[in-house]
Amino acid sequence: MRVLMPDLPEFRALTVEGVTALPYRNGDLPDGEAEGVVLWGANAETRSQLFARPGLRWVLTLTAGIDHVQGQLPPGVALYNASPLHARAVAVHTLAGMLAAVRGLHRFRDAQREGQWQPRRDLGTLEGASVVVWGYGHIGRILEELLAPHGAHVTGLRSATPPAERDAALAEADWVVLLLPDTPQTRGIVNADVLAQLKPGAWLSNQGRGSLVDTDALLAALDSGQLGGAVLDVTDPEPLPPGHPLWGRENVILTPHIASTTADLVQRGAEYTQAFLKTMAAGREPEGRVETGKGY
Amino acid sequence: MRVLMPDLPEFRALTVEGVTALPYRNGDLPDGEAEGVVLWGANAETRSQLFARPGLRWVLTLTAGIDHVQGQLPPGVALYNASPLHARAVAVHTLAGMLAAVRGLHRFRDAQREGQWQPRRDLGTLEGASVVVWGYGHIGRILEELLAPHGAHVTGLRSATPPAERDAALAEADWVVLLLPDTPQTRGIVNADVLAQLKPGAWLSNQGRGSLVDTDALLAALDSGQLGGAVLDVTDPEPLPPGHPLWGRENVILTPHIASTTADLVQRGAEYTQAFLKTMAAGREPEGRVETGKGY
Repeated sequence: MRVLMPDLPEFRALTVEGVTALPYRNGDLPDGEAEGVVLWGANAETRSQLFARPGLRWVLTLTAGIDHVQGQLPPGVALYNASPLHARAVAVHTLAGMLAAVRGLHRFRDAQREGQWQPRRDLGTLEGASVVVWGYGHIGRILEELLAPHGAHVTGLRSATPPAERDAALAEADWVVLLLPDTPQTRGIVNADVLAQLKPGAWLSNQGRGSLVDTDALLAALDSGQLGGAVLDVTDPEPLPPGHPLWGRENVILTPHIASTTADLVQRGAEYTQAFLKTMAAGREPEGRVETGKGY
Repeated sequence: MRVLMPDLPEFRALTVEGVTALPYRNGDLPDGEAEGVVLWGANAETRSQLFARPGLRWVLTLTAGIDHVQGQLPPGVALYNASPLHARAVAVHTLAGMLAAVRGLHRFRDAQREGQWQPRRDLGTLEGASVVVWGYGHIGRILEELLAPHGAHVTGLRSATPPAERDAALAEADWVVLLLPDTPQTRGIVNADVLAQLKPGAWLSNQGRGSLVDTDALLAALDSGQLGGAVLDVTDPEPLPPGHPLWGRENVILTPHIASTTADLVQRGAEYTQAFLKTMAAGREPEGRVETGKGY
């Protein structure tokens, strides 16, 4: 089985019986047929060249999201993602942002940069907080475990959750955490109407995709005080351009789409790939198959 | 039983059978004898006037630390502190600082203030981290519960821990969390020798008292890279004066001695006081008695 693999030391070190690795990098692709592609760090042009490879039967993207792949694969090519590789870091990053918000770390950092010792009293914990996790899957379950000893109450929303149940949960939420993928159904799902349903002073955390939130409605809800603040790892537009109004909001905590990043991610990605290839080479079905048309 | 109480609405609302509340504020103390003092927000002059009250038998300080009281009480006056009132918030604040550090939130905040979208790879989680809690009591136990689902390993150090055991733990630590009180034995306990024992790149979190750490040694360890960084809620000197070198260190996360602060602290303090007074009025021994000379 010939497999196109990222040309990185961690992947070059892999050996799996029955698998011939063909290292690629952007602008430098090997020739010949390939049954599979392991996708990591490939730009749009490289992806289109990889997906046009004769004999292609499957693609493993070492990401959780698949919006960069969706609609580009030839018919009959199976797509796998690598959610478990990212779930823990995203859950930890989500909790980190929530705790930073309730402990005021963003404001204390601003004061630090100005050399100002400025105690404040508007701090808290997550004890008794109602946390709605919108897009409750593997990451959401880990987040719930992390939140448990804080005394927070988690309500998970899935696409199958009845609208009335969803609205009731949103109206009670102190925190709304978005972990949804980008699909036609989720785009702009947090709009002015949804933001107006929230309890005044609630916080929004978007760790899913920037497209989930209507940015103008978000800014308006921050201006009016309807939202207490927002923790955003993803934005629309993304990257956030210089001068965008979100940069300057004191009660917005921004990180640049790094919720799943850890220093050892490439190494972990290579280990994940090795296990995947062993399963595939043995003729078994690996985990992570993405249903066509489901979007995640 | 006549008890001097803070002149705040939350305390004025208290009624306990057998207790006559005498509200005081800085610069405005009622006359007459008093059996007890509930200490909150009193400055040094007020404290010395309160402690000189005829008939005084006990003092409840609604703080965890007692360095502002120690050595000032007349002989025979019992001292109580209110550690449980602060333990959870301090544990949550400690975790918040650790997660901010591993997720790079301090650096991303700096980038945000400059309007810069700057992903970085040097991020992590607390999975597998060795956390030494130096001063392992009520707060430390809650912190250990909060850390458990992160996959961190906690080692608690007490004053009774043998030095060899302590040194072995410090040499393995990814995080050293200080929760010690200020006593003659703990002053400067984290000095250049201790910092040199740590694994290069370890982080220090001081949520106890500023006096625990030799600030010059801390700065030197940050400069040399021996410390990966520091999360400080307390400093020496405190408040940190304008222009102090700690303000400007990128890998120092500073908060202004607010680890135990929550918006509802006064209300919770009043509730704690009510339960304390009921126990005292019933002739039973309340929790929180501080052993003379122990310092905490």
